[in-house]
Amino acid sequence: MMNVQSFPGAALHSEERAREVDHPSSPVARFGVDQPLRLDCGVDLAPFQIAYQTYGRLNADRSNAILIFHALTGDQHVANIHPVTGKAGWWETMVGPGRPLDTDRYFIICSNVIGGCMGSTGPASTNPATGKLWGLDFPLITIPDMVRAQAMLIDRLGIETLFCVVGGSMGGMQALQCTAAYPDRVFSALAVACSTRHSAQNIAFHELGRQAVMADPDWRGGRYFEHGADPHRGLGVARMAAHITYLSDAALHRKFGRRMQDRDLPTFSFDADFQVESYLRYQGSSFVERFDANSYLYLTRAMDYFDIAADHKGVLAEAFRDIKTRFCVVSFTSDWLFPTAEARAIVHALNASSARVSFAEIETDKGHDAFLLDVPEFFEISRAFLHSAGLARGLSRAR
Amino acid sequence: MMNVQSFPGAALHSEERAREVDHPSSPVARFGVDQPLRLDCGVDLAPFQIAYQTYGRLNADRSNAILIFHALTGDQHVANIHPVTGKAGWWETMVGPGRPLDTDRYFIICSNVIGGCMGSTGPASTNPATGKLWGLDFPLITIPDMVRAQAMLIDRLGIETLFCVVGGSMGGMQALQCTAAYPDRVFSALAVACSTRHSAQNIAFHELGRQAVMADPDWRGGRYFEHGADPHRGLGVARMAAHITYLSDAALHRKFGRRMQDRDLPTFSFDADFQVESYLRYQGSSFVERFDANSYLYLTRAMDYFDIAADHKGVLAEAFRDIKTRFCVVSFTSDWLFPTAEARAIVHALNASSARVSFAEIETDKGHDAFLLDVPEFFEISRAFLHSAGLARGLSRAR
Repeated sequence: MMNVQSFPGAALHSEERAREVDHPSSPVARFGVDQPLRLDCGVDLAPFQIAYQTYGRLNADRSNAILIFHALTGDQHVANIHPVTGKAGWWETMVGPGRPLDTDRYFIICSNVIGGCMGSTGPASTNPATGKLWGLDFPLITIPDMVRAQAMLIDRLGIETLFCVVGGSMGGMQALQCTAAYPDRVFSALAVACSTRHSAQNIAFHELGRQAVMADPDWRGGRYFEHGADPHRGLGVARMAAHITYLSDAALHRKFGRRMQDRDLPTFSFDADFQVESYLRYQGSSFVERFDANSYLYLTRAMDYFDIAADHKGVLAEAFRDIKTRFCVVSFTSDWLFPTAEARAIVHALNASSARVSFAEIETDKGHDAFLLDVPEFFEISRAFLHSAGLARGLSRAR
Repeated sequence: MMNVQSFPGAALHSEERAREVDHPSSPVARFGVDQPLRLDCGVDLAPFQIAYQTYGRLNADRSNAILIFHALTGDQHVANIHPVTGKAGWWETMVGPGRPLDTDRYFIICSNVIGGCMGSTGPASTNPATGKLWGLDFPLITIPDMVRAQAMLIDRLGIETLFCVVGGSMGGMQALQCTAAYPDRVFSALAVACSTRHSAQNIAFHELGRQAVMADPDWRGGRYFEHGADPHRGLGVARMAAHITYLSDAALHRKFGRRMQDRDLPTFSFDADFQVESYLRYQGSSFVERFDANSYLYLTRAMDYFDIAADHKGVLAEAFRDIKTRFCVVSFTSDWLFPTAEARAIVHALNASSARVSFAEIETDKGHDAFLLDVPEFFEISRAFLHSAGLARGLSRAR
C-alpha cells in the first residue's frame, strides 16, 4: 500500500476559537434591537455586535482616526498577539510606533467584519432568538453591509470624520465602498490590491472554495457544530486553492521551484515530495485552526456580489461624483488576483469624478500577498500619502 | 434555512466506465509477463495492456504513422464517439478527412496512457496477481513510463519510425519525451501548450486537486471501489480547480463576466447565482462520470515529476543533442498554465542542440484550452508543418 500523507486531524484551537466568537478578548460594541443593521438582503439584523481593536490615541479634535478594513481571512488583530494562534498581528509591518500607520500619530481602529468569526456577529455566533448557533440561518451579507456596520461602530466611538480608511484586498473593497457611501466622513482613503467588483475568475476561485467546504460531509449542511463535526478537510482544500492565488508564479518559483522536501530523489508516492506541496498542506491545516467554515462561505460570497458601479447604472465614476476624499490606489505588478488593470479602472473612474487620486504600481514578484509582506516601497508610499493627507488635515500640529 | 445547491449525486456512467477499464471497446495490445514495462520507480509491470484507436490507413512503406498523445484527462477516443459519455471525440477538429491531421493521408494512432482508466492498465484495472483492483497498490508512473509503453505498442503495430508525434499539455510532454528517448524513431514532432518540466505553480494546482480527492471520505485510502463508494465530490472539486487553470481570465470574462444565471437579481444565497458558478459545477459533475479518481492522482503526479533536463544534469539541450527530428512548438498568448516562456525555453534548448525547430505563439484569449478549441491559426500551422514534414518524408507520393 502506498504511503499517503494528508491533512492532520481535527483543529487544535477549536475551543479558543469558539470562545472568541461570542466572547472575544477584544472590546465589543453591542447594538440592541433598537439599532438594527439594515442588510442589503432586506433583513434587519438585531441585536448584533462588532469586536474591534484600537491602537494609539484619539486626539482632542478627533481628527486622527484611521479605520483599517481587514481582508477575507483577516480580523481585528492588526498589531497585537492573536488570541487563537498566538502569532503576531497580521499588519505589524504597517501599524505601530514609527510605522507607516504610526500609532504615535494616529488613532487606529480595526474591527472584525460582520459575518466574521472573531467576535463580530456571524454564522458562528449564537442567534439570540433561538439560543442556537446561526449557521446558514444567518442572512447573507455584502461588502456595503460590512461597511454600514463599521460606520455604526465609528458613531459609537464618537468619531464624525475618519482621517483615513485603509485596506487591502477585501479590505480595499470596503475602503472604496466606505468612501462611496460616506464621502463626507472620509478625509482620505488608501485602497490596496483591490477592485470595485469581483472578476469572473475570482468568482470561480471562490466558488471552488465553497464547493470544497460543502463537499466535506462534515460540513453537514452548515450545521457541523451541532454534530461535533468540523469540515476542516474541505476548508483546508479551499484555503490551499486561495493561497495559490495569493502568490505569483514567480514567487512560487523563487520560494520553492521544483525543490524536494528533505530529500533529493522522488519517493514515487503521494507524499509531499516537493516543498511547494508541503507548504500548501501547512497553509491549509493551519488556517482551519482559526477560521469558521461558514464564515468563509459568507465572506467569499460578499466579495463575489461586490460591484460598486451596479448601484450607479454601471457607471463607476457616478459612485464617486464630486467626492472630496483624497485617494491613493496601489497595485502590485505580480498580483494576478487583483491585477493593475483593476486599479487603473478605479483611478480612471476617480479621475472622471474629478477626485484627487494618486496611483502607484509597485514592482514585486510577491503576488497579491505583497500587501501583507515586507515591501519597503509600499511602506514608503503609504507613509508619504498619510503624511501629505495629514498636513492637509492639520495633523502635524496634533502631535 | 438557506437553500444550498451543490454537486449532483453518484456518477451516472459508473457501470460503463468500469467496463471500459478492463474490457474496453477499443482494440487492446496485451503484453505478457515476458514483456514487462520497466517503470522509473524500479518496478517491472507485467502483464499490462494498452488500449488504442487508429484512424486512416498505414501506407505500404509504413511511413505515414502519427502518434497522438492525449492530455491529463483525455483518452484514445480522439475522433470517434466516446463509449462512456456518448460525446464526440476530443480532437475531432484536428483529426479526420481533410483536417490538419488528415486521415486520408496519415495513419493516426492514439492510445490511453498507462495509469489511465479507459482500457490501458492503471489503478482502476484488476491486478492479475490478486484478482482485486490495483488502487494505490499500482506503482507510480512517470511521463517516460507512458512513452515507453507506447513505444512497445508502436513495435507491436510494426512501425519502426513515426512520421510525427503530436500532443498538447501532458500530450506535448510525452511528444517531447518521445523524441528525446527515441530520436531515431520520430521524424517530426508537434508539441503544443506544454513544457519540459512542471512549474511550482502547476505542481501546487495538482497538489490541490489531489488533496481534494483524498479529503473526500469516500476516497477511503484509494480503495473506494471495495466499499461501493465513489469520491465524486472530491474529484469534482479537483476538476473545478483544474478547469479554472485551463481558461484565461479574459475567456472567463468574455464567456460569463458577472452575468447571473437565469435571473437578474442576486438570490442572497449560496445558489449558483453567477453563470460562471453554474458552469464550473457542471464541469465538476460531468467529469466524475467518466474518470477514475485514483487515475487522476497518478497522472497528475506523473506530470509533476516530469523534468527532461533532470536526466541530463539540468541541461535541457543535452536531451536533444544532434537530434534529426523536425520540431514545431506552439503556445497560446493567454495560456497561463503553460505560458509562452515555457515554449521559448524548449525552442532555445532545441536551437542549442542544433535541432530543426519552428515556433508559433498564437494570439487568442482562450487560455490553455485553446489547443482543444476552434482556433483556425493553430489548425493552419499544424497543417502546414505536417505538409512540409511530409514532403521531406516523401509522403506526397504516398497518397
